[in-house]
This record gives sequence, C-alpha cells and structure tokens, in this order.
Amino acid sequence: MADLRDSVFLRACRREATPYPPVWFMRQAGRALPEYRRVRQGNTMLEACRQPELIMEITLQPVRRYGVDAAILFSDIVVPLQAVGVDVEITPGIGPVIAEPFRRAADLDRLPALSPSDVPYVSEAVRALTVELGPVPLIGFAGAPFTLASYLIEGGPSRTHEHTKALMYGDPATWHALLGRLAVIAAGYLQVQIDAGVSAVQVFDSWAGALSAADYLQSVEPHSAALLASVSGVPKIHFGVGTGELLTLMGQAGADVVGVDWRVPLDEAARRVGPGRAVQGNLDPALCFAPWPVLADRVRDTVRRGRGAEGHIFNLGHGVLPETDPDVLRRIVELVHSETAPH
Amino acid sequence: MADLRDSVFLRACRREATPYPPVWFMRQAGRALPEYRRVRQGNTMLEACRQPELIMEITLQPVRRYGVDAAILFSDIVVPLQAVGVDVEITPGIGPVIAEPFRRAADLDRLPALSPSDVPYVSEAVRALTVELGPVPLIGFAGAPFTLASYLIEGGPSRTHEHTKALMYGDPATWHALLGRLAVIAAGYLQVQIDAGVSAVQVFDSWAGALSAADYLQSVEPHSAALLASVSGVPKIHFGVGTGELLTLMGQAGADVVGVDWRVPLDEAARRVGPGRAVQGNLDPALCFAPWPVLADRVRDTVRRGRGAEGHIFNLGHGVLPETDPDVLRRIVELVHSETAPH
Repeated sequence: MADLRDSVFLRACRREATPYPPVWFMRQAGRALPEYRRVRQGNTMLEACRQPELIMEITLQPVRRYGVDAAILFSDIVVPLQAVGVDVEITPGIGPVIAEPFRRAADLDRLPALSPSDVPYVSEAVRALTVELGPVPLIGFAGAPFTLASYLIEGGPSRTHEHTKALMYGDPATWHALLGRLAVIAAGYLQVQIDAGVSAVQVFDSWAGALSAADYLQSVEPHSAALLASVSGVPKIHFGVGTGELLTLMGQAGADVVGVDWRVPLDEAARRVGPGRAVQGNLDPALCFAPWPVLADRVRDTVRRGRGAEGHIFNLGHGVLPETDPDVLRRIVELVHSETAPH
Repeated sequence: MADLRDSVFLRACRREATPYPPVWFMRQAGRALPEYRRVRQGNTMLEACRQPELIMEITLQPVRRYGVDAAILFSDIVVPLQAVGVDVEITPGIGPVIAEPFRRAADLDRLPALSPSDVPYVSEAVRALTVELGPVPLIGFAGAPFTLASYLIEGGPSRTHEHTKALMYGDPATWHALLGRLAVIAAGYLQVQIDAGVSAVQVFDSWAGALSAADYLQSVEPHSAALLASVSGVPKIHFGVGTGELLTLMGQAGADVVGVDWRVPLDEAARRVGPGRAVQGNLDPALCFAPWPVLADRVRDTVRRGRGAEGHIFNLGHGVLPETDPDVLRRIVELVHSETAPH
C-alpha cells in the first residue's frame, strides 16, 4: 500500500512534486482498443458494465497497453440510474436513451437512493481490481447532477439542453429536488467504489459548459458541491467540457483537481481554477490524428504549461475518440514520462 | 433610402445612439413558424433556397410576424458550395451532407470561384426583397472558411471536427489552400448579395469555438479576415458559438459587429471584443421555453448589459430552436423595443 499512496498519480492529486506528470486518458478503456471491441462482442454496453469479469478485463486493458499511471473503472454514468430502476439503455452511435424522460415533480419518485446491494458487480470488480493493479491507482467515477439531469430530462444526448433548461428556469423547486436526488445517487455510487478500494474519484459534469456562469452558480454548483462534499478519504477530480467561463466556480466547488478541455491553455486554466487545486488535461483528442512531430510538440507544450500549476495530471481535454490509433496513445505516455522537470 | 440608412439596425451597426436596441433572430426565417413549414412542403431545403419566390416569402414571414428590425435572407451557408458544383444536400434532422468529403489537395479542384450567374435566384430575390422591405434592412450572409471546411472535410456536421483538425495539423499547405478558396467563394457569395442590395452581411463561423485561440489565430483567423476585408460598403457581423476564448481575436478580424453566444455576459463580451466594435446577442435560445417573467427578466438584463457596449443589436446567442413558440419571439421584440435608454 505504501507504493500505491506514493504513486505519481496520487502525489500529483495532492500537489506534491513528481518527476513527470502522471498520465491517463478519459475513455482509455474503450472503443479505440481492438481487445476491447473483442471482449465487448455479444454484450450491450450496460450488460458489460454489470459483469465483474468484463469490468476487470476492460479496466486493465489500457494499463497493459499504454502504461498509464492510473486505471479508471469501466462503467458508465447511467449505471447507478439503471441500478435504482430507471429504464435506460446505451444505444451505439447515440448514447444513453431514457425510455420515459423526466419532466415533472412526480418523476422524482423514480429516483430512490442507491444502496450498495444495487451494484454488487461494482464492489466485486473494484475489490478484485485493486489487488490486480497493485501500485497503479484505480479511479472511480460518477456523473454530476446537471449532466445526469440533462440525460433524464431530454431522454438522451442533446446539443441544446432545451427541456433541461426549461425545467431549470420554469420550475426551480422540482429542478433543485431532482438535482438533489441525483447528487445523492451519485454520492452513493462513489461511496460504493470508495468502500471497495478506489484511490480517487472523478465527477463528470460533461455538459456544464452549456450554461452561463450565473446559471451554473445558481442552479448547478450547489449540487455538485454537495456531491463533492459527500466524498472523503480520496482525492476528487471535477471535469467538464467547454468550461472556460466556469473554471473559477468549478475550482471552488470542492474538488482537489479540476479537469480542463483544450480550449483554455493549461497555465491560464490553472490561474482561473485558483490556488490549492491541481489541474488535469488538456490535449485536444483530435490532435491524436496529427502527424507525430506536431502532436509531440503539443504534448511538450502541455507539460510545460502544466509546470506552472500546483499539480498537473496529463490527460486529453475530452475522451479518446473511437478512431484513435492506440499506438499514438502509448507514445504520448512514453513522451510525457520522458519530460522530466528541468533542473 | 434615407429611411433605410437611418434604421435602428444600421445605426447600431455604426455604433450610433439608438432609442432601443434593434432586434432580429438568427434562424428567424425557419421551422418555428407554421407558415414556413407550410410553404416549404414539397421542397427540400436547397430546392427552396433556389426559388426566388420562396426565398422572398420565407424572408418576409418573420418580419410580418415578429416586427423585427432586420430581415435576413433565406439561404444556407452551403448554397454557394452547391452552386459551384459540390454535391451537397441538407438532410432533415442531420444538416448538410457532402457526397464526397474533401481530404486531399486534389479536392481543391472541386472548388472554383463563384460567379454571380451561379446564383441568379439570389440576386433576383434580394433585388425584389429590398423593394418589398422598404425601410427594413436586409442582412445577407455567408459561412466562414473554417465552418465551411468542417462540413466539406467531415462530410457533415461533427461534434469533434477530427478530420478537419487532422488536415489542419497534418497538411497546412492543403489546409490554407482550402480555406483560401472557401474565403473566395464566400466573398463572391456576399458580393452577389451586396450588389443586389443587402444592407449588411453576417459571416457565420458557427464551429470556430471548437478551436483554441492559438489554433484559431494561426490556422483560421487570416482567412476570416481576408473574407471580411473583401467586403466593403455595408456593415459586417461576425458570429460563432462557444467563442468566449476567441472574442478578442474575432474583434480584430475586421467586422463591425461581433456576435456572442450566451456563455459570456454581454458587458464582458464587449470588453473582450474591444473598442470600435458593436456586439450582437446574446439570449440563450433555450430561455424561450422559460415562463415569461423569467424570460423577460433575462431580456431586460441583456439590454442593460448591452448599454455598456458601443453598439448593441439584440439577438439570441444561437439560432431559434425549432420548437420555439413564435408568440414568445414576438413578445421579446415588443419588450426590447419598450426598453428605451434611461434618461
């Protein structure tokens, strides 16, 4: 356990000095890997998320292949929703599809709290993974209340979030009750993972960037803060896309690390996030399709900009794109590990 | 003609004092209107864009219905691409679909310059509309080189722009040649509209917000600036979505007015855009689904924040959403017109 606690990843989360930035990739366990596509055959996404053996195998694949400094549990932010009884499926090429979208106060009854016995496969997989991973930290995760609410209310992915915002503006009582319940479910899901042994957690508020700072502060941040406050004992990472205007507020929401997409340079992002927090990011996933010399320059630039932060975990600015060549990700890890701090 | 030149819209473009901010809505001519859905029946989008009678009727519908301070020509940013021979259709529910995506230098041969005789229906419709509209200004428009390139390279709408960025990073010579040609085509399309009598033009760089400021500056801004520089004699508006990090650069690209989405408050946006420019925006289109008192507060707040700018044209932060109640848009116009500057 001494090894694990002193891992480069957890040191960076604690803003301690590291010889190089630790690296992992959002969606590193996923479609870019042929071995992933192979083991997923014959199972829907959510079926795969309920099988401890598959969860383990898929979680371990990118650790073997890329040599990343942290594993992330193979799961999905809608897993706890399905576990409490929401009728949801993940449709290939689309994303989560909710059979009966949430629109009214009465829909709250469909969101009871999550009990550990609702997700036994998660506890089992995490326990076995921590043994298997040894000194490599395992990251658990959950969806943030706003992003979960958007899926529930829209019935699936949305570019405009129009029904979500209509409820947010039109019925604040139901809105806050809904986000409160989602925070409780997400907190329960994180607690299951922490109790089973994950070393850190990430809260995905992928769609928060659709909001102005004023709306985020009033209607969303309190629930993300409550979720983050419910977690103790492990470092917490807080991530969203297109959050340039929200980074200061996200820095204040209670996480140890704030994830940043590629639109804001990492040194500027660290300034916005403020002191006492590390940053995670922020290479544009599309850069993985660039020629290696161009990509390598950007990787080095990201590492350089990250040196000004109190702590830096190297990552992409959003998830690995499905068409990405796995060998490119492996080379990125190698390059970041070779970029030791100048003396 | 004196009336037209002194219209509230053109005065605001010139940063002259106006009794209230002029209002128009991006996509005001479109699916939210039952009379639009009626006249579009039996025609594809691009067929409709080639019929002067239909262009006229659809352009006029929102002026009649909403009492907006400007009309915008009914067209599409891919109309000039189709007119020079690109095989493109607009598929309902998807958007532009390009039969053979552009990926190589050889594809440049498929992009000859636009001649006015390629789009006779546009000249004819604009000429007739300027008569019909009398004192109401008509806005012409074109797509910016980056946004057009993304459609051509991806083959359709994309959330990740991965092929586009791969070409941008991987083959700068082809990239710049492609954006250069697209700027020439877009400039030609704007010139046709200006020669036929439009009073202002808007350049839509809808997807520029997918880029970091450094990439925008190096790979995109020169071509947008060239396009804007090619236009003279009428005010120019420059718009993109999610451009919080780019507003200063967009302000320097040569437009008279910079359009802003709802993520940045309008007073802060005006600060970023800098002196010597007006701003346009920036009500979240999803707010049209909020109860009227909530929406009215936000409209007033937008007007208030716009007073600090050198000029303010009231608009949404992106296009009218298809499910929007037209009566809500009518009430917004009425409210903005009643918000006269305090004495």
